Amino acid sequence: MDVYSTWEIFTSEAVGTGLLTLLGTGVVANVLLPKSKGFNGGWLLINFGWGFAVLAGVYAAFRTGAHINPAVTFGIWANGAEEFAPGIEVSAWNGIVYVTAQMFGGALGALVSYLAYKKHFDEDLDPASKLAVFSTGPAIRSYGWNFLTEVVATFVLVFVILMFANDPAQLGPLPVAFLVVGIGASLGGPTGYAINPARDLGPRIAHALLPIRGKGSSDWSYAWVPVLGPIVGGVLGGLGANWFI
Amino acid sequence: MDVYSTWEIFTSEAVGTGLLTLLGTGVVANVLLPKSKGFNGGWLLINFGWGFAVLAGVYAAFRTGAHINPAVTFGIWANGAEEFAPGIEVSAWNGIVYVTAQMFGGALGALVSYLAYKKHFDEDLDPASKLAVFSTGPAIRSYGWNFLTEVVATFVLVFVILMFANDPAQLGPLPVAFLVVGIGASLGGPTGYAINPARDLGPRIAHALLPIRGKGSSDWSYAWVPVLGPIVGGVLGGLGANWFI
Amino acid sequence: MDVYSTWEIFTSEAVGTGLLTLLGTGVVANVLLPKSKGFNGGWLLINFGWGFAVLAGVYAAFRTGAHINPAVTFGIWANGAEEFAPGIEVSAWNGIVYVTAQMFGGALGALVSYLAYKKHFDEDLDPASKLAVFSTGPAIRSYGWNFLTEVVATFVLVFVILMFANDPAQLGPLPVAFLVVGIGASLGGPTGYAINPARDLGPRIAHALLPIRGKGSSDWSYAWVPVLGPIVGGVLGGLGANWFI
Amino acid sequence: MDVYSTWEIFTSEAVGTGLLTLLGTGVVANVLLPKSKGFNGGWLLINFGWGFAVLAGVYAAFRTGAHINPAVTFGIWANGAEEFAPGIEVSAWNGIVYVTAQMFGGALGALVSYLAYKKHFDEDLDPASKLAVFSTGPAIRSYGWNFLTEVVATFVLVFVILMFANDPAQLGPLPVAFLVVGIGASLGGPTGYAINPARDLGPRIAHALLPIRGKGSSDWSYAWVPVLGPIVGGVLGGLGANWFI
Repeated sequence: MDVYSTWEIFTSEAVGTGLLTLLGTGVVANVLLPKSKGFNGGWLLINFGWGFAVLAGVYAAFRTGAHINPAVTFGIWANGAEEFAPGIEVSAWNGIVYVTAQMFGGALGALVSYLAYKKHFDEDLDPASKLAVFSTGPAIRSYGWNFLTEVVATFVLVFVILMFANDPAQLGPLPVAFLVVGIGASLGGPTGYAINPARDLGPRIAHALLPIRGKGSSDWSYAWVPVLGPIVGGVLGGLGANWFI
Repeated sequence: MDVYSTWEIFTSEAVGTGLLTLLGTGVVANVLLPKSKGFNGGWLLINFGWGFAVLAGVYAAFRTGAHINPAVTFGIWANGAEEFAPGIEVSAWNGIVYVTAQMFGGALGALVSYLAYKKHFDEDLDPASKLAVFSTGPAIRSYGWNFLTEVVATFVLVFVILMFANDPAQLGPLPVAFLVVGIGASLGGPTGYAINPARDLGPRIAHALLPIRGKGSSDWSYAWVPVLGPIVGGVLGGLGANWFI
Repeated sequence: MDVYSTWEIFTSEAVGTGLLTLLGTGVVANVLLPKSKGFNGGWLLINFGWGFAVLAGVYAAFRTGAHINPAVTFGIWANGAEEFAPGIEVSAWNGIVYVTAQMFGGALGALVSYLAYKKHFDEDLDPASKLAVFSTGPAIRSYGWNFLTEVVATFVLVFVILMFANDPAQLGPLPVAFLVVGIGASLGGPTGYAINPARDLGPRIAHALLPIRGKGSSDWSYAWVPVLGPIVGGVLGGLGANWFI
Repeated sequence: MDVYSTWEIFTSEAVGTGLLTLLGTGVVANVLLPKSKGFNGGWLLINFGWGFAVLAGVYAAFRTGAHINPAVTFGIWANGAEEFAPGIEVSAWNGIVYVTAQMFGGALGALVSYLAYKKHFDEDLDPASKLAVFSTGPAIRSYGWNFLTEVVATFVLVFVILMFANDPAQLGPLPVAFLVVGIGASLGGPTGYAINPARDLGPRIAHALLPIRGKGSSDWSYAWVPVLGPIVGGVLGGLGANWFI
């Protein structure tokens, strides 16, 4: 028996992931959208924005171990752990609840971020930049290499987190946040570091559904890379941590 | 009976909020005012400046739970907590003391910041930029959307803080500071993230009263947005945390 | 009886302050000197450089409470504390040892920093920029206002530190480091934030003595500002913390 | 008898150093390689990238005290400690295992970083910049002064770490990471701060072996500086900490 109900798990992960993509897509909007005060603020601003977005999300979702990322959930499963978080056993049902909540929260956070930047989205801008606020895209399109980059970056994330516990909140929210800043600074150059399927697919769905002024394609041909890459990286991270410890 | 006297509550919150706006308006002065060494230092500099301004203020006001922000005080009230901080009960009188102290401190901090940058304020500069040191203004003026942005950003702040306690100092000053860095990086683009009525109205009053060389309007038509927006966001954050926990 | 000998106090504070000015003047050299890899790296780089210089110095000098700054030593004295650090009583002799060690260490650190950047000091550059690596100078020269800015900035530093203890190491090295980052970001614009007589006078003496290629004046007419300003600010911070707590 | 087998020591240090150079060379690739999203991101981005690379490496290698740097291993030996880490005695064999693992991991991390940025390495770029992703080079070539700079910077690193314990993980991963950010910001200007033979020689070997498109010399004439400099600095740091404590 789990300590938490399905509803409690769902809301915890959905709210945590929602804060993650609200703040995360927010910093990209700040840097890319015309007239925004952080316009052209640079890559380090984006890295810190996403890192502290993780900080907020981890605090909010601490009860469920603060996965807020299917790659972490898959990684814990691959790791062979018995619990997704203290009091929540690893089971197919719970895994589905985690991932569904993350996807739902990821889309919701992007929606709220869109509303916060509504007037800036209404400005003229090439459609690709408007999509870039929501979802990642490759600097040089090459599916195989882009996939590999996402695998490597996510491996680092999940491997380090699982060194300590099946509970990311246990490592401490600040170290996790700075680790994410570091992964973005270091490995984010080629693909924009999704390293989290819910961070990419959730907002991409929001982009497809929302009536954004002058929006273009949601680039579905690339969408599988930031989903499968992080999942493979997370599974490898879980296996690696199991072997290593 | 409260552990602290009205005078002790007042000075704690006034000094904490004073440090907040002294350092916070200081970093904006550093970036905007001519000849300053941080001139044109970028958005991330402003974000870290405000974040560590919160750090100083939270340390100084730790005895009263370090609200230093009416939105937090309103949020705790909406949350249904019994105490504003350990040993200080929620009451109308205490609420008035908190908010009055915050407003007074906010104005005082801006005054000291003005004195520290006096020679740079004496330089030629458009009046809007001089006001921008004191108070926030929208990148694209649209009261409704600006209001919404302030609501969202303040909701994130108060919701995450109240996840843990009615005592922001308990979450830890460093995580709160980095959370504020993140909110500024991510959601500060459209309005300059007041997320705190005392941070905006206090300095705006100081701007109106001070004999700043070549100053212009204090933009009172916008002043309600960074007051009501954060209060609504704080109340929603308090209600949300109550529902969520 | 003190726990530590005069020699132990001297070496602790000298080494701590030496690390402070080694790393602190180093980051300015990195940003100002031609061909350096951090050339033109911006104000935030300088802020983090000085902040983490404090981090190193505080760790090294933890046994003596990590003052590494006469303004802190004066502030503790003004605060009415009985000990400069756990086991080291407040006395005229100990105060002299602290401050002498800080001045000596401050000069020594600048010497080592000069050696580390020797080839870059040999490059052509206006003499004022070479001095700026060692010591602070005002953006707009106006002794009274510059003095006031140093008083305010140092007040914030010492007041927040003395909120907690007569032992800066107790507040925690990381918060102190980030507080210094914040003070530099926010109040460093007009004078370059000495906020520490040993950080400014020690390196200025080193500048005067060293055979730096193409060096100019050591600007002694300004030298009293970053000495007296921080001392006055530190004393006010000590008195303020006493009144406040 | 050691608590860990040779294999466990080897894998711990190799994986930790591998994460260090994966993320560390990654951030340089991000800043230097054409079309990367962090292109021209500035020195502070590089500093934080390397600092959080240390964070990841220290977490991964915590069982063996997280040296991930021969300069630390030599420093502990010079310090006269009895253990390289809790449960691992100082012996010639263990020292060889540590350093070999660090070199191996350093090369491996650079290989993975190369793969993550493969398409960007394929772009046209001068060969020196491609080498700069892997290994350090001097801003002004002058072997003696470059050597001195590496000695000084590594001395600071090892001295501060050994103030506390023969176990870098004990100081805390976050302070170590920020210390490395600070050393890079402050003393990285002249040589690019190897401060770690495995960080420089490992990736240089990888550069020599890999079939990088349009690569040039691996600059072996400079290679001894970032090896011997950090070792001498580490030994002096170990001796200094012994004298100081």
